Amino acid sequence: MKELVFVGLGLNDEMGISLRGLEETKTARATFMELYTNLMPNFSIKNFEYITGKHVCVLSRRNLEEENGAIVLEAAENGKTVFLVPGDPFIATTHIALRLEAQKRGIKTRIVHGSSIISAIIGLSGLQNYKFGKTVTIPFGENSSETPYKVISQNKSLGLHTLCLMDIKADEKRFLRINEALNLLLEIECRNKLGIVTEDSLVVGVARAGSVMPILKADTVKRILRYDFGEPPQSLIFPGELHFTEVEALVAFAGAPGTLRSSVR
Amino acid sequence: MKELVFVGLGLNDEMGISLRGLEETKTARATFMELYTNLMPNFSIKNFEYITGKHVCVLSRRNLEEENGAIVLEAAENGKTVFLVPGDPFIATTHIALRLEAQKRGIKTRIVHGSSIISAIIGLSGLQNYKFGKTVTIPFGENSSETPYKVISQNKSLGLHTLCLMDIKADEKRFLRINEALNLLLEIECRNKLGIVTEDSLVVGVARAGSVMPILKADTVKRILRYDFGEPPQSLIFPGELHFTEVEALVAFAGAPGTLRSSVR
Repeated sequence: MKELVFVGLGLNDEMGISLRGLEETKTARATFMELYTNLMPNFSIKNFEYITGKHVCVLSRRNLEEENGAIVLEAAENGKTVFLVPGDPFIATTHIALRLEAQKRGIKTRIVHGSSIISAIIGLSGLQNYKFGKTVTIPFGENSSETPYKVISQNKSLGLHTLCLMDIKADEKRFLRINEALNLLLEIECRNKLGIVTEDSLVVGVARAGSVMPILKADTVKRILRYDFGEPPQSLIFPGELHFTEVEALVAFAGAPGTLRSSVR
Repeated sequence: MKELVFVGLGLNDEMGISLRGLEETKTARATFMELYTNLMPNFSIKNFEYITGKHVCVLSRRNLEEENGAIVLEAAENGKTVFLVPGDPFIATTHIALRLEAQKRGIKTRIVHGSSIISAIIGLSGLQNYKFGKTVTIPFGENSSETPYKVISQNKSLGLHTLCLMDIKADEKRFLRINEALNLLLEIECRNKLGIVTEDSLVVGVARAGSVMPILKADTVKRILRYDFGEPPQSLIFPGELHFTEVEALVAFAGAPGTLRSSVR
């Protein structure tokens, strides 16, 4: 049967995949993987191949985007093919074109979900999912854009939290870090002067969500700039209006200063 | 060691858990589970116990909310305890109080993430994650509220999509269905007359996200009202402004009418 199954690898390492994903991989005729849309810091292809008993062909951005995933589509036309993607497969929009092309060629597609950085970071923070507005990615300085600042501003005006993901250039092993991102936002603040991201704004830094030892730290931008979050991946949350349970969670799980309590109505 | 590990069961059935979650469960001294915050339609406790080799104690809402999870906390004070939760453990905010109480008692807490209905539905739809605004839950008719209507309206005014989850009363085996939710929204439209949810509005219905055969259907509210989505869990997406790739995805994956193409700039 012509079939292409997109399987989420989940977070962090080869243990992030679901039992269903493992099963699908073991029964695939061909197995591909990409590791450039998200960083899985402790992922070992060797261990993964050992667990699944499959040889995995790791694809580059060039294979998938310039060559439109031809190698994957050809395999899927000859039998069940599994394509492994970090996190939940379609949270990055990169692979929608591949799924569309597969459908067009009469290849049946399915998705086996994995845990996503989005729900992981929200869950770790103790902030309430339904109080998050639009998510945004902060680009590297050379592609600097005011969009993230505008999104944070819009969300704040609605009382909503903003999850900021960090740009990634996995092929160059470059991952935007929290302090770089904050400096980029402070520069934009300097030009706009709306008081959206100042040195005194509350922000939550998150590093290595999904690993055994994620780091969370909530404090003012000024202090978070000097905090050592260690290795990537890193992310930021700019809180909007906080409910008192959310404040307690930030104090307990992210070491927020107790003075934050007095800011809540 | 005093330790409480919150483990996400992921979606649909006992195969939704990650390999890391399985490992943590196998090595736990005590194992608890709740199955009321989200519906896992094909979950078998017996199969799960077989896979993990553990006896699992299933807790009710009363155990966790009225008795503040005392039974879980007591176990965690005596050694590593795993608490299994559908989806990603903290996407429902129900268990934050338990995590806070554990920390207060000096019990170390950790989270092993699972795939969440949130990222699953967004991924299945082919709509772009960063174009979603605030998420909302539509309550049953007896608790009817204008909040979902207002959230859809606010998101639409910003060009953003709205993910609407459905209320659930697992203890009574009641799950709000797509047609009931749409009728509730149409009633609110009748009172407000803002043209936010009319019979001609585009909407995407999703049933059993995370199962092997999820159902997606995009069409007008009028037609979706008559569409048979089968068993719960069900959800809705009200699209905001659509990018042409998103339209192609809705046509290909959700059977949206091809005429939708002409609506995109």
